[in-house]
Amino acid sequence: MDEGSKRVYIVGGGFAGLAAAKALADAPAEVRVVDRRNHHVFQPLLYQVATASLSPADISAPIRSVLRGQENCDVLMAEVSGVDLETQRLILASGSVVYDYLILAAGATHAYFGRDEWEAVAPGLKTLEDATELRRRILLAFESAEYEGSEDARRADLTFGIVGGGPTGVELAGAIKEIAGQTLPRDYKHIDTRSTRVVLFEGGPRLLAGFPEDLSARARRDLERMGVEVHVGSMVTDITAHGIYVGNQFIPVHNVFWAAGVKASPLGRSLGVPLDRAGRVVVGPDLTVPGHPEVFVTGDLAAATSADTGAAVPGVAQGALQMGHYAGATIADELAGRSTPTRRKPFVYRDKGSMAVIGKAKAVVQIGRFHFGGFFAWLLWGGIHIAFLIGFRNRLQVLFSWFWNWLLNARDARLITGRAHLDIRQPRSSEFVENTPEPVVRD
Amino acid sequence: MDEGSKRVYIVGGGFAGLAAAKALADAPAEVRVVDRRNHHVFQPLLYQVATASLSPADISAPIRSVLRGQENCDVLMAEVSGVDLETQRLILASGSVVYDYLILAAGATHAYFGRDEWEAVAPGLKTLEDATELRRRILLAFESAEYEGSEDARRADLTFGIVGGGPTGVELAGAIKEIAGQTLPRDYKHIDTRSTRVVLFEGGPRLLAGFPEDLSARARRDLERMGVEVHVGSMVTDITAHGIYVGNQFIPVHNVFWAAGVKASPLGRSLGVPLDRAGRVVVGPDLTVPGHPEVFVTGDLAAATSADTGAAVPGVAQGALQMGHYAGATIADELAGRSTPTRRKPFVYRDKGSMAVIGKAKAVVQIGRFHFGGFFAWLLWGGIHIAFLIGFRNRLQVLFSWFWNWLLNARDARLITGRAHLDIRQPRSSEFVENTPEPVVRD
Repeated sequence: MDEGSKRVYIVGGGFAGLAAAKALADAPAEVRVVDRRNHHVFQPLLYQVATASLSPADISAPIRSVLRGQENCDVLMAEVSGVDLETQRLILASGSVVYDYLILAAGATHAYFGRDEWEAVAPGLKTLEDATELRRRILLAFESAEYEGSEDARRADLTFGIVGGGPTGVELAGAIKEIAGQTLPRDYKHIDTRSTRVVLFEGGPRLLAGFPEDLSARARRDLERMGVEVHVGSMVTDITAHGIYVGNQFIPVHNVFWAAGVKASPLGRSLGVPLDRAGRVVVGPDLTVPGHPEVFVTGDLAAATSADTGAAVPGVAQGALQMGHYAGATIADELAGRSTPTRRKPFVYRDKGSMAVIGKAKAVVQIGRFHFGGFFAWLLWGGIHIAFLIGFRNRLQVLFSWFWNWLLNARDARLITGRAHLDIRQPRSSEFVENTPEPVVRD
Repeated sequence: MDEGSKRVYIVGGGFAGLAAAKALADAPAEVRVVDRRNHHVFQPLLYQVATASLSPADISAPIRSVLRGQENCDVLMAEVSGVDLETQRLILASGSVVYDYLILAAGATHAYFGRDEWEAVAPGLKTLEDATELRRRILLAFESAEYEGSEDARRADLTFGIVGGGPTGVELAGAIKEIAGQTLPRDYKHIDTRSTRVVLFEGGPRLLAGFPEDLSARARRDLERMGVEVHVGSMVTDITAHGIYVGNQFIPVHNVFWAAGVKASPLGRSLGVPLDRAGRVVVGPDLTVPGHPEVFVTGDLAAATSADTGAAVPGVAQGALQMGHYAGATIADELAGRSTPTRRKPFVYRDKGSMAVIGKAKAVVQIGRFHFGGFFAWLLWGGIHIAFLIGFRNRLQVLFSWFWNWLLNARDARLITGRAHLDIRQPRSSEFVENTPEPVVRD
């Protein structure tokens, strides 16, 4: 390694972090990508892991593999605990490292609006572990209902509540309704899984708030045709293991999933600079921390605006990719002597459109002036997601799984792993008798 | 349901349990398969999940799906805590059920020969959770070595100990050596993963004790050519987080995997009948519990002998399949009035051969008088494992993955999930500095 070369640390191997690293591929720098996980996750398809359509490995890739062709780049699996802006140090568990440039792309996690006790009863969907946990809960609900004798408890087992009507909430609601209505019916003999209720709560006036209004209406209509119960303007006031309170109304639900709020990684706080309400770092036009042109903040951790419109950059994959690329390319230009910090062009976000899938042959797409839904939107959604997946093998694999699932209504990753205890209030079948009072297990 | 029809309970959805259920497909009975998991696992390929070649869903299938075409069969996900032979009750957490016939096929778990404290430092491989845990440990070892500055600690990170020289131990040793030697080298910049040591300890005089001697020798030669260090007649006396003791010798190893001993499911004890040293139920020639012709014990839970040779039935997939089929078919015959308990033909085990894979294009196969190894054995091993996998989709998927892995030396499921904390003794790189003493995370 060249003694004089600059050290660029990138924290986070998500969309923003990888885009930044790639933009630095030819830079005369020592690039370090630090992530506490060994893998990049393609978050837009996490809901398909949660609903047993895809396996975790299909939508993820080891960060090392993604970057292994890049000579100047090193990957470090480590948890970052903070940043010291003054001494230009990144603090890890095993020691600190000194950076010349820093790109923070640590992303976001769930926010429960001060009701952290909801996390246990209403898990969210950000990591592969979250996805397999949701899958476990969804599949266990049907196992439980199959043997539950109490009609009320069975009804609550077969009701799923989803809080939040953004893309994740909409996609999850549609996918749960589909697995219950199309994949599972033949598996169970005592319940009709098609009677499963999926209830979607959105606090705002419409679903998919980031989309044009006609697509929000279309998404709602499509979901309702599939049988999803959509409640907009519906503030959830409490969630327990037994159900959801919306104002005075109580809905008995044994499984609630959280797709409502996110807050930025706590790493932002360690900077000691102004944050917005969601904990995101308020950055300047060049995505850097005020007074520190060497520290970029990108992706979901950044509260950034686009220089042309002054509008906030949305917390979506496109935003993260573009911010990460901007930060990496800006540093690369300066290290190559093509630019200096004082001559930076401000970041401009190019809205390439939005899309969300609702179900088989149902999606909504907005690209510039064009808004449309239905089969063609669904195909486009699929094509673009395949194209943005990392790795040829993953693309092939997901394409094959989708074709197979489409053909047979299959969801072949129906694994309940981890804790698998059923809590049956009273067994349904007449063949069950009371447990004998004396202990029967002998030694 | 016919009021007069008999209830046949089957405990366990492994090879034996599924074979029993299938043999009862046309019987005038209410068949119930009880398993604490929702999925069947194809155990012979678990080591490929542990070494990132396959995903968990590729080698498993929901028990409900496997049996859903079978009208007389119901699947119950529940933990069985015991059996009361006198009242013919099976005891579950939520109540007891009364059986007319019972088939116990609850399998086996790891046995540490009274050294249960080894379990934490030397996990075994029986479930999907075990497999992802081994995968986590294997992959974390390389991440740790990449940034470990202490030469001793790095050496121990890059050493894997495997205790037990049966098929699982041999297959795991070969697979770890291959992933280290072929898949990972380009991913790491500070270590040469090809220098990874894999040390295999077998207490007996040779590997693959159940195989003919020439194949044991062949397996050893093949493993040694791949660089695996094979120690036979080597009794492990202690295992800690730092290494393995073999007599007075200490080998620093950070990861040890257990493939040595199994003990039968504790369910056997609840019967109150004689067990063998491994906790298996000693059954009669018709695989039933003495004095209870209505209770069959099959698979790894049974200590059975073959009526023709008097030899013990080995604890392999073939044995489980044949015992399960025998039990199911015997009951089906009796329910159909074609036989009675007093006219049962004793169980005869047909040895269809043994096979174990060592590495790419390396396997050993024994079929009757034929013993052979090498490329053709490897192809046969693959073909037979594909054929016995459950589900067309799984067959297609595994075939594709094998082809891909063979072509590119790929292991594409390299996910570290769950706890992912690296314990670095001293960071390797000169760019690391001591952590600043004052706390840097601000609120």
